[in-house]
Amino acid sequence: MSVSTSFVVSVIGLGSMGMGAAKSSVSAGLTTYGFDLNPNALAAFKEHGGIAATTLSEATKEADAILLMLVNSAQCDEVLFGKNGIANSLKANAVIILGSTTSASYAKTLNEKLQAIGLRMIDAPVSGGAAKANTGELSVMASGSDDAFADCKPLFDAISAKLYRVSDSVGGGASVKMINQLLAGVHIAAAAEAMALGIKAGLDPEMVYEIISNSAGSSWMFQNRVPHILAGDYTPKSMVDIFVKDLGIVLEAGKEFKFPLPISASAHQQFLSASAAGFGQEDDSAVIKVYPGITLPAAK
Amino acid sequence: MSVSTSFVVSVIGLGSMGMGAAKSSVSAGLTTYGFDLNPNALAAFKEHGGIAATTLSEATKEADAILLMLVNSAQCDEVLFGKNGIANSLKANAVIILGSTTSASYAKTLNEKLQAIGLRMIDAPVSGGAAKANTGELSVMASGSDDAFADCKPLFDAISAKLYRVSDSVGGGASVKMINQLLAGVHIAAAAEAMALGIKAGLDPEMVYEIISNSAGSSWMFQNRVPHILAGDYTPKSMVDIFVKDLGIVLEAGKEFKFPLPISASAHQQFLSASAAGFGQEDDSAVIKVYPGITLPAAK
Repeated sequence: MSVSTSFVVSVIGLGSMGMGAAKSSVSAGLTTYGFDLNPNALAAFKEHGGIAATTLSEATKEADAILLMLVNSAQCDEVLFGKNGIANSLKANAVIILGSTTSASYAKTLNEKLQAIGLRMIDAPVSGGAAKANTGELSVMASGSDDAFADCKPLFDAISAKLYRVSDSVGGGASVKMINQLLAGVHIAAAAEAMALGIKAGLDPEMVYEIISNSAGSSWMFQNRVPHILAGDYTPKSMVDIFVKDLGIVLEAGKEFKFPLPISASAHQQFLSASAAGFGQEDDSAVIKVYPGITLPAAK
Repeated sequence: MSVSTSFVVSVIGLGSMGMGAAKSSVSAGLTTYGFDLNPNALAAFKEHGGIAATTLSEATKEADAILLMLVNSAQCDEVLFGKNGIANSLKANAVIILGSTTSASYAKTLNEKLQAIGLRMIDAPVSGGAAKANTGELSVMASGSDDAFADCKPLFDAISAKLYRVSDSVGGGASVKMINQLLAGVHIAAAAEAMALGIKAGLDPEMVYEIISNSAGSSWMFQNRVPHILAGDYTPKSMVDIFVKDLGIVLEAGKEFKFPLPISASAHQQFLSASAAGFGQEDDSAVIKVYPGITLPAAK
């Protein structure tokens, strides 16, 4: 639905999730700037009708909402406070929306730093994958003040099918996303372990997938990732190293809270093993490659 | 659907799954004997129109198919070869259907013993829970000979919505069920770990359940078991000790194959911890009780 509005959006980071959100913002009729270091991503965004900015400053100086869709908190810090950092050159009353998956403690600290210079922030990690990002149907787990949410309504309407208001104080969104990532990571690693054992036991992996998908052992991740294994296609939709990071955030929270997380720790070790073996940039389903002595389905 | 048939069924073990299957067999018009050591179960079965046998011999001597829905392989051995064992007093050409979850190696050994005395066997573990058992809509993962399946078609039609013929040789059904139980067990333990961390992080558990159920972190088990935690109701639908056993079968297979299963092993330790702490006979969602220092939702 295209609407007329003067609301200006800036999306920093045009990876698969950021690109989808940025395109959805354009499709909703919002003036949308995009920025990425990758020129191909910028060109693709421009082709979709977005404003491809060549500097961070150009991308953000007119923006009412700046959506950060970056890989990790270090990149967020660089964009906001680094050499060409934008934090001190934004419009008064602009809202920073932290769409990246970070720890709750990072989100809270960032909020304090932004508040100190008169900026508002919403932490708003997303779920749903590139497909849902492209259609503007992300699930967003967000926390922040009522006025910030009210001001950013056009953007959330554009990118999300479900906007969960987790709490009024920044950090709640990151906490819920962390719980989701704990489960998502364990489920991918468990799907890999299960398929590996099935292959070792001599079962037909296609049949195992079909039966489990219709049984109590199924999960969203099992149904989504096992087809990559069956096709022998480890082209990254989401990479092994993302779960090295995200389960790392989970385990850091465990240390901060002094709380045991043995199953998460076990799954994290499997992603670390996959990364150490050279599969860090492959699809996260490549975690199955750490199980030795089996022959995986070949690429088709 | 009630049909007229001379096919005679015997169901040994009228727990939640066996009772459901036995009732479905009655409802389908099959002459159905039931046996259990629990007189209340027998009475309930009789009320539903089943023939409540008072001895194993009475329950099985006329049966064309004997469905074993027992807790473990030791009980199966006792029923077949123990003091009042039935193996040597069945009708010629009767088919033993092993509906219990056992190891594939047990199923294969049992098949050899039964073949030696002229009996046929299908290993047919089930999935779907008590609700699906009651409505005759179980998923059955079965392996055995064509003639045995042909002869037992009336029973499988009565109890299952999906009958997966895994292979022609006994053991395949048990192997697939093992893969399902690996995932089911890990997913229950992961659901517990995730909800425990959410509570520790100060999140509202009802909200976490709602958001995760609609996100990529969801699983069949997360959606099915977390409501027990939210209700503070650990009345056993399926007990902690069932997963002590079933993940134990998974890990035994790992030892037999010399194959590493670190995530399954981690989940098994959590069920063992729960059992050691005295929760073995509670609902398997009680595995969350091993996470210390949090306050779980109270019973409603």
